[in-house]
Amino acid sequence: MRLNELRKDYILDRWVVIATQRKRRPTDFIRVKRKEKPSICPFCPGNEDMTPPATLVYLKRDGELIKDHDHDDLRHAGWLVRCIPNLYPAFTHNTREERSEETGDFKSLPAIGHHEVVIESPNHDEHPGVAEISQQSLVLEAYQDRFRALSSKEYVKYVSIFRNHGSEAGASLSHAHTQIIATPMLPRIVKEELEKSEDYLHKTGRCIFCDIIEKERESRRFIWENKGFIVFAPWASIHPFEFWIFPKRHEASILEMNAEELRDLAVTIKVCFGGLRNLLDDPPYNLGFHMIPEGSFHWHIEVYPRLSIWAGFEKSTGVFINVFSPEEASLRLREAIDKEESYLEE
Amino acid sequence: MRLNELRKDYILDRWVVIATQRKRRPTDFIRVKRKEKPSICPFCPGNEDMTPPATLVYLKRDGELIKDHDHDDLRHAGWLVRCIPNLYPAFTHNTREERSEETGDFKSLPAIGHHEVVIESPNHDEHPGVAEISQQSLVLEAYQDRFRALSSKEYVKYVSIFRNHGSEAGASLSHAHTQIIATPMLPRIVKEELEKSEDYLHKTGRCIFCDIIEKERESRRFIWENKGFIVFAPWASIHPFEFWIFPKRHEASILEMNAEELRDLAVTIKVCFGGLRNLLDDPPYNLGFHMIPEGSFHWHIEVYPRLSIWAGFEKSTGVFINVFSPEEASLRLREAIDKEESYLEE
Repeated sequence: MRLNELRKDYILDRWVVIATQRKRRPTDFIRVKRKEKPSICPFCPGNEDMTPPATLVYLKRDGELIKDHDHDDLRHAGWLVRCIPNLYPAFTHNTREERSEETGDFKSLPAIGHHEVVIESPNHDEHPGVAEISQQSLVLEAYQDRFRALSSKEYVKYVSIFRNHGSEAGASLSHAHTQIIATPMLPRIVKEELEKSEDYLHKTGRCIFCDIIEKERESRRFIWENKGFIVFAPWASIHPFEFWIFPKRHEASILEMNAEELRDLAVTIKVCFGGLRNLLDDPPYNLGFHMIPEGSFHWHIEVYPRLSIWAGFEKSTGVFINVFSPEEASLRLREAIDKEESYLEE
Repeated sequence: MRLNELRKDYILDRWVVIATQRKRRPTDFIRVKRKEKPSICPFCPGNEDMTPPATLVYLKRDGELIKDHDHDDLRHAGWLVRCIPNLYPAFTHNTREERSEETGDFKSLPAIGHHEVVIESPNHDEHPGVAEISQQSLVLEAYQDRFRALSSKEYVKYVSIFRNHGSEAGASLSHAHTQIIATPMLPRIVKEELEKSEDYLHKTGRCIFCDIIEKERESRRFIWENKGFIVFAPWASIHPFEFWIFPKRHEASILEMNAEELRDLAVTIKVCFGGLRNLLDDPPYNLGFHMIPEGSFHWHIEVYPRLSIWAGFEKSTGVFINVFSPEEASLRLREAIDKEESYLEE
């Protein structure tokens, strides 16, 4: 019997067992989805009154794109992208601050920050794998606008942009949306990435992420690239079919993308999520942007298809078990993307 | 609007937002369970041929308990507790070792170790909340036996004992069972606990866990205690209704329990899991033992009811959102346990 392999993440002190003894096919990961109860969607056009006033609205008027951030009541109709405060925010900012009553012997901070929702399209069922490139580009511009606005606040130490797709992945509303959370501290995972990449820079004079990209481009984990972006299954993937998207140019955050790169990213997203969707019958997934505008960082997107359950072992040890190897995942995703691309060209 | 609270774990560099603005009742966490397909259970008595030979069998013969570890073919009928190798192990140990082919530029180790399953009872639907104290005690003795045997192996650096209950919590078989994984490295979470507790000992001369127990015993997070054990909802609970079980005596692992403590633990488990089961209609949960036989450690069990989904934010930042405060969880669990106890006394 062949031994399974334990792999350590490029950067994090995180191990994963690549446990492929029980051979699985991609179709083994397809699950029957839970049916959603149909209900009125607060994110659909016409229901703007069901959400708080927007913090950002993009709309077209007389064929011209208007970006409205400063209007008094941002409850426009006819929008293309809309960003609103989350109705049940994890982090909030108030002028009348109230500290929690009990801090006791243990460490506590008020959860000051922001929690917003980017509604990516007027179409309820929009998916990054099928959206128009022009629409996906607008979504990316909205990320840039809100990232810039939230990062600039004095009390904000980190801005997390993330997306949950499918109820199994924690999406409580099915209308295409992304969430943005601004926190008053640097989260552990990003802090560890930053520290290790600054160590590496100090020792070698190079960016650790640039070196990873260069190696993975030549590896069996490479998935796709265009002029601006590269996609691969990470060496120590903790999820089946996990993939990461990196800008080829060394950039700390999405704010450094030029217009051409922004379009390249929109295409990359369409192609990769289209491939994922076709390969695994529109699986649930989570994704998170990793970026720090200051310091030696190389921003990227990590995509976590939700095809397995983290259970007692993972939760109590921090060690993961992945039953599908990143090399096999990369091969299958490449095949699915090739089909996707030939379809796009038709 | 009251601000949410960010809390840091006692020991780990782990933050959680206690986000209780959207008031929830315990019943809000009850979910309709997925129906399982009925099938032949390989863990039920009579089906011993469907599993590999056992590594441990406890059985009663002529009224006397027999602990059989060394029999040639451990496929006894009439067992009370049975431990077997996992049919699809994450970690394995073979005499003919085969290294994986490609290690490339990144870090890799062969996943040498063990992966076993403790079948806790001949009864398919046994639950720690309803099992007889005598049966639960046998299960704990089986943990001790296998923990001792696996820890003593030269290539084993850590032994994780964990339990997944319910298919939503990752249990692929519903027959009452616990898993044991022996790994060739110390997992991250346990390593961080050990390092911090050794630092604390060095600075203060005291055990960090003993100090936590003392504080939580007087806090609103205290849930239950008997002579040997104490139960509380941890300050920075990352799951709704999370609770931790500690031996009051400073012990590094379950091997140090005396007979009275072992019985006290069996009672603690019955009472707490009975309370949890009644409060939330037998919710799915994971639990993990944290213990290191050497060094300054204080073993304990962490119980994670599976009532929320970790999504893009948690996965990409390592920061958690918990919508039910540990103080409220502790109150509700205390009430449910009081009912459980009065029922036990009847």
